[in-house]
Amino acid sequence: MKLLIINGPNLNLLGRREPSVYGSESAEAIVGAVRARYPQVEIEYYQSNVEGELVGAIQSADGRYDGVVLNAGGYTHTSVALRDAIAAVSVEVVEVHISNVLSREEFRHTSLIGGVCRGSIAGFGADSYRLAVDFFVNRQ
Amino acid sequence: MKLLIINGPNLNLLGRREPSVYGSESAEAIVGAVRARYPQVEIEYYQSNVEGELVGAIQSADGRYDGVVLNAGGYTHTSVALRDAIAAVSVEVVEVHISNVLSREEFRHTSLIGGVCRGSIAGFGADSYRLAVDFFVNRQ
Amino acid sequence: MKLLIINGPNLNLLGRREPSVYGSESAEAIVGAVRARYPQVEIEYYQSNVEGELVGAIQSADGRYDGVVLNAGGYTHTSVALRDAIAAVSVEVVEVHISNVLSREEFRHTSLIGGVCRGSIAGFGADSYRLAVDFFVNRQ
Amino acid sequence: MKLLIINGPNLNLLGRREPSVYGSESAEAIVGAVRARYPQVEIEYYQSNVEGELVGAIQSADGRYDGVVLNAGGYTHTSVALRDAIAAVSVEVVEVHISNVLSREEFRHTSLIGGVCRGSIAGFGADSYRLAVDFFVNRQ
Amino acid sequence: MKLLIINGPNLNLLGRREPSVYGSESAEAIVGAVRARYPQVEIEYYQSNVEGELVGAIQSADGRYDGVVLNAGGYTHTSVALRDAIAAVSVEVVEVHISNVLSREEFRHTSLIGGVCRGSIAGFGADSYRLAVDFFVNRQ
Amino acid sequence: MKLLIINGPNLNLLGRREPSVYGSESAEAIVGAVRARYPQVEIEYYQSNVEGELVGAIQSADGRYDGVVLNAGGYTHTSVALRDAIAAVSVEVVEVHISNVLSREEFRHTSLIGGVCRGSIAGFGADSYRLAVDFFVNRQ
Amino acid sequence: MKLLIINGPNLNLLGRREPSVYGSESAEAIVGAVRARYPQVEIEYYQSNVEGELVGAIQSADGRYDGVVLNAGGYTHTSVALRDAIAAVSVEVVEVHISNVLSREEFRHTSLIGGVCRGSIAGFGADSYRLAVDFFVNRQ
Amino acid sequence: MKLLIINGPNLNLLGRREPSVYGSESAEAIVGAVRARYPQVEIEYYQSNVEGELVGAIQSADGRYDGVVLNAGGYTHTSVALRDAIAAVSVEVVEVHISNVLSREEFRHTSLIGGVCRGSIAGFGADSYRLAVDFFVNRQ
Amino acid sequence: MKLLIINGPNLNLLGRREPSVYGSESAEAIVGAVRARYPQVEIEYYQSNVEGELVGAIQSADGRYDGVVLNAGGYTHTSVALRDAIAAVSVEVVEVHISNVLSREEFRHTSLIGGVCRGSIAGFGADSYRLAVDFFVNRQ
Amino acid sequence: MKLLIINGPNLNLLGRREPSVYGSESAEAIVGAVRARYPQVEIEYYQSNVEGELVGAIQSADGRYDGVVLNAGGYTHTSVALRDAIAAVSVEVVEVHISNVLSREEFRHTSLIGGVCRGSIAGFGADSYRLAVDFFVNRQ
Amino acid sequence: MKLLIINGPNLNLLGRREPSVYGSESAEAIVGAVRARYPQVEIEYYQSNVEGELVGAIQSADGRYDGVVLNAGGYTHTSVALRDAIAAVSVEVVEVHISNVLSREEFRHTSLIGGVCRGSIAGFGADSYRLAVDFFVNRQ
Amino acid sequence: MKLLIINGPNLNLLGRREPSVYGSESAEAIVGAVRARYPQVEIEYYQSNVEGELVGAIQSADGRYDGVVLNAGGYTHTSVALRDAIAAVSVEVVEVHISNVLSREEFRHTSLIGGVCRGSIAGFGADSYRLAVDFFVNRQ
Repeated sequence: MKLLIINGPNLNLLGRREPSVYGSESAEAIVGAVRARYPQVEIEYYQSNVEGELVGAIQSADGRYDGVVLNAGGYTHTSVALRDAIAAVSVEVVEVHISNVLSREEFRHTSLIGGVCRGSIAGFGADSYRLAVDFFVNRQ
Repeated sequence: MKLLIINGPNLNLLGRREPSVYGSESAEAIVGAVRARYPQVEIEYYQSNVEGELVGAIQSADGRYDGVVLNAGGYTHTSVALRDAIAAVSVEVVEVHISNVLSREEFRHTSLIGGVCRGSIAGFGADSYRLAVDFFVNRQ
Repeated sequence: MKLLIINGPNLNLLGRREPSVYGSESAEAIVGAVRARYPQVEIEYYQSNVEGELVGAIQSADGRYDGVVLNAGGYTHTSVALRDAIAAVSVEVVEVHISNVLSREEFRHTSLIGGVCRGSIAGFGADSYRLAVDFFVNRQ
Repeated sequence: MKLLIINGPNLNLLGRREPSVYGSESAEAIVGAVRARYPQVEIEYYQSNVEGELVGAIQSADGRYDGVVLNAGGYTHTSVALRDAIAAVSVEVVEVHISNVLSREEFRHTSLIGGVCRGSIAGFGADSYRLAVDFFVNRQ
Repeated sequence: MKLLIINGPNLNLLGRREPSVYGSESAEAIVGAVRARYPQVEIEYYQSNVEGELVGAIQSADGRYDGVVLNAGGYTHTSVALRDAIAAVSVEVVEVHISNVLSREEFRHTSLIGGVCRGSIAGFGADSYRLAVDFFVNRQ
Repeated sequence: MKLLIINGPNLNLLGRREPSVYGSESAEAIVGAVRARYPQVEIEYYQSNVEGELVGAIQSADGRYDGVVLNAGGYTHTSVALRDAIAAVSVEVVEVHISNVLSREEFRHTSLIGGVCRGSIAGFGADSYRLAVDFFVNRQ
Repeated sequence: MKLLIINGPNLNLLGRREPSVYGSESAEAIVGAVRARYPQVEIEYYQSNVEGELVGAIQSADGRYDGVVLNAGGYTHTSVALRDAIAAVSVEVVEVHISNVLSREEFRHTSLIGGVCRGSIAGFGADSYRLAVDFFVNRQ
Repeated sequence: MKLLIINGPNLNLLGRREPSVYGSESAEAIVGAVRARYPQVEIEYYQSNVEGELVGAIQSADGRYDGVVLNAGGYTHTSVALRDAIAAVSVEVVEVHISNVLSREEFRHTSLIGGVCRGSIAGFGADSYRLAVDFFVNRQ
Repeated sequence: MKLLIINGPNLNLLGRREPSVYGSESAEAIVGAVRARYPQVEIEYYQSNVEGELVGAIQSADGRYDGVVLNAGGYTHTSVALRDAIAAVSVEVVEVHISNVLSREEFRHTSLIGGVCRGSIAGFGADSYRLAVDFFVNRQ
Repeated sequence: MKLLIINGPNLNLLGRREPSVYGSESAEAIVGAVRARYPQVEIEYYQSNVEGELVGAIQSADGRYDGVVLNAGGYTHTSVALRDAIAAVSVEVVEVHISNVLSREEFRHTSLIGGVCRGSIAGFGADSYRLAVDFFVNRQ
Repeated sequence: MKLLIINGPNLNLLGRREPSVYGSESAEAIVGAVRARYPQVEIEYYQSNVEGELVGAIQSADGRYDGVVLNAGGYTHTSVALRDAIAAVSVEVVEVHISNVLSREEFRHTSLIGGVCRGSIAGFGADSYRLAVDFFVNRQ
Repeated sequence: MKLLIINGPNLNLLGRREPSVYGSESAEAIVGAVRARYPQVEIEYYQSNVEGELVGAIQSADGRYDGVVLNAGGYTHTSVALRDAIAAVSVEVVEVHISNVLSREEFRHTSLIGGVCRGSIAGFGADSYRLAVDFFVNRQ
């Protein structure tokens, strides 16, 4: 099994950015922990701040991965382009968020991409990534 | 570890109700599978169609369980009372949904309870319950 | 043919409650008149003020009645749980209202349940119930 | 007793137009069946695609009929002029719809005319007309 | 000076329709009184219930009258076609209403045509027509 | 007959302020012309930029004038206090505007005071005042 | 004089639930203090988390109490059924809230029930109950 | 104890203004009755129709009174300036209304000032003032 | 190939009406130029200001033309009846507009009919008609 | 004549992406067919998933092309930056869409860029591109 | 050069009012510091809590000052009268705010006056005033 | 002191793009003038049309500059990603706009980024940049 974890804008700052909201682990540490837990799974990681590059990453994942774990960051609430990319590919995408977006500003309560993803996981900190991977590994 | 899974209105029909949306497993089968997977956890199950009884169930869980997995069904979108109950207790509550609520009718896109839960998991079918339990068991 | 008439909150007060709006007949008198008119039909009656008990009544009607006549009262405008119950069962449900909801407060202009019912009848006083029963008896 | 059935725009296409939504009976067949069922009632039929002619038909019905059964079609959702006509006359008007308007596009969920009608009947196919006539014939 | 008074839908019922709202004078009586008051002005009168015929009347008035007094009735709030007709002609149109539309239902608070008229006069009963004519006769 | 013309904020600038919108006559000139036209009427004039003073002027007019002509300026769209004052007195108030408010910014399309006035006249420049006075003088 | 204090969902947790918002007194202590202050009044107390049971409590109070003090908790903002119950009975109901609902989340700024109550008292902590009772006892 | 009762616009008309809504007592009579009931409290009274003077009155009350009872009248729904004044002072302000604002026009359902007041009391007629004073006198 | 060009309200004024918006060619000149360009196509032309007649024209086109080019003018934004007519027929309808509706008033940004047409062409002046015809002639 | 066709996000997937919505031709095939049809026109093609690169492409086209055909894909509904780019250049831009955006999700009904384009063409599949080119070639 | 700084409601409390939001300097100290920094500029200061007096101050500034620096406080969000005053005068007005209004309550995100000012400066504490003066002094 | 001026999409066209809105100076000229005025400050300049590159520029500025002056152009109104970047860094960011955004299209009245910036300056043309730099240089 081969999975791709995609992080969107500002998630390259994980561990340094508002730790009370996003936790104190870097993205690399989070991915490393997930890899350690699921050694049988090949997990690649991609990050970009550019919406169109995220669109490209999802397009490229099609046919090459068994699943995508996507934290689209701020583009979650504004990007029709990302939504269209997810709808255009056949690989399943799981939306994740570190923080509980429903307890934050109202503009974060809307997800343009959630409706075309396989499912959504939000609010569990670094565990959100692990649970998304767990879904692909242990799904019924 | 002791967890409580609470199902709200119409989830007593699981397995019979719109299987294309909600799957073909009964609630009992779902809970049974979760118990089998996490034998070290004591998992109890409660279901009610009555909003106020769900409020009561959450109140009663406080201090008696290490976590609550709540599928509030239709009350998710309309119940301030449930939100207040979750905010009033110290036990952590994880919101789950079987279907991907963001791909359904617009009134299902709003969750009144998500903002006071620990996190939300939606769209993974029966796996949504398992992932919620997994969070409590394997959280970092 | 066997039909179930379900009345929601405050409809136990029919005949006493705002007679200018709801008429001066009790629910029992209304049901009695309908039974007298359609002697060939077995008509049962259920009333509850509790949303979840109405959910349960609709669930229980499935497979046991040939049709349900539902006046959901105030839950008409607020209950996703009732909507889900109606959508979950295969027995046809007809929505009725005694008063003309469209000529009253704006929050009564929205019906959350109408879209999943077989049809809606509103504004004819006690006749609303009779017409709903007539639909089941004399439908083409 | 003398009743007038008024059909609005596109209802001259009944039987040919989207049969899965509007059924396969022509308007003439529907009216014929109603006449056959209530031979003691004189039932006239009028159809127009023109909003102002429907306004005129309602005005003309005043004092000449014991009731009007009105399917205003697409004007239901947009016509203040029809609403004003109904409010201006003393003959009672019953709003009918063949389809369940609440299960269709959102702009069909609003009725500008329902609030000034005697009542509304929607979703029963050709039976909607019969039930409206039945109200006038058998009202309490 | 030659003026055209145009009345829209249901205003043919003036004097008979909801007299508490619209007064007890017929349209003919109102026009007659205005003619008597301004004998030096040639005043013609046109009424139609049909939106498109009102569009045509405004088009035809262009170049033939020195002003138009328009009570568009229910089309006031819904007709882009009338608005476009008024904007398309060079003859000035004054919007009038018998009742005070701002004290009635909310959907009457919006006028689609007022913004392209010379001005608006509402709430003065039959005097609204007279004041509009007076504007054309005695304008500075 | 004794009338009071009340001008609200910035109308002391008439003649100097945006002449393309408000005309080139001063308020004094407008009032003077109206007085000249209706010599039989005693017309007083009051202007204030202060909302509460306008409230007071309306209160004081009660029982002392046969009518009030009110151009509330910018308070038209925002003042519940003025609305309450007009509703509290028995003297009739006519709302006037120099410009056609419906052809300007959207926030000018709403009048909080119009619904409790006798009627409204807008868009006729200085003639708006004259027509309002004419209503009181020549009403039927 | 006989009064009924009704508490809605989660108010059984008073004293334990978010003390910074709801204070540190239990409901029993609050009611006890009110009884002590108005010994001449018979004060009964009822609490339920179930919307329909609150509907029933209000119905039952009719004719048996001289007034009802109602803290509907989260149902305040969502329950048409409670509103209908209050409108259906002749006993006067006073709405109370412990916290200042207008300084909290926006969904708490709307009260569906306030408009049919005698009046509303909010934000005074336990004193809100006492003031409501005082109204019944000392009203002019 | 020293309290200040502040009345906003049009409340100088109490007793004369719409008695069915606001009662038949003058403001002076209301204040007099409150003074008589709480002889131990020094109660001053201030009224103004001018928003900015009410802002000034609240500012001036700071440090000189133990509490303010404020009926802001129509400014309740529109005044950020009053809200800011209340938030700026440390003296507690209680919002009162004579009528039940929630049963009146929709624009009266919003209070801009309630969220920064100690609490709100509405709908009890002249008793609203007395209850507000009672809060300050007998608070726990 | 046989096509029908239908023009709605006020388009009979083309060439005379607001030339800066709608150009200086008459409808006849526009149709003539299209006919000259596509001599192999039989192109008929129909115009009406009456919404219901446009509904009738679309109904009549079914089975008699290979395509319809429709400029519904002001009815574009308000007519459910026209939408229903287009949805009811099997002949394809192409929506055209002379002006760029998205650069004009906000109420022109909504098209009720576009969603049931084959496609939409707007903003190209008289060329909009030609391009619509070209689609039918040269479609792939 | 020299034209530039610009495709936005996910349009590199044409032919593979949701063929029922977007057709089975690749972008290259579509452009090739257009070139074949208009051999006298030099047609270049650019695609990017990156909003800012599309902004740059439009900027660069200014002065170098006689027209731009732009399918902005998902950025159509969200990009003020693209709108600003189109408004900033003097080369005319024609907006095209393959699918009928008005028959899809509501967030696709709004175009931020259409109002500053020369015109819009939507719903004709690959023909939308050809018609846009035809406009530049054969415009009157 | 002669400038007028105008402060609106509650800004007379600067230094005492919510220092964490508005800073600890009095208005006099702020103005004094600005005067000290720009000794070549004559800077006058005016403050009022009364909307209409602020309207008057702006009117009076016309022709007497080279610029106005206006902090309209709470009237920023509600005053059409102030907007009209600014639009009516030719002296340029710069809007300033001490706090960052966009990071506060949502009703502070709207400025009715900003659109007719020369520009806006917000969030810099006392520096906002200095920067506004600097604009007038050092503008290009 | 070291400052970074960041310009967003289309601001590379300054001087050429809509000069009546954006002025006739190039970005380089504006930056040059600012540098000349504040020779003691090291001012760097960065421009990109790509949202994600602007996100990166803000991230990179953290710890390397004493302040950022950001004109986010069209992304101001749509970018949660930029907002998150600004919130994630500790360097203070000042939002600037050349034009008065509040006097332009309504979609420009909302700033997603302003609430997390130090402050905002808009409407002063090239002076907006200078004033922002002046804040950093001369702040109290």
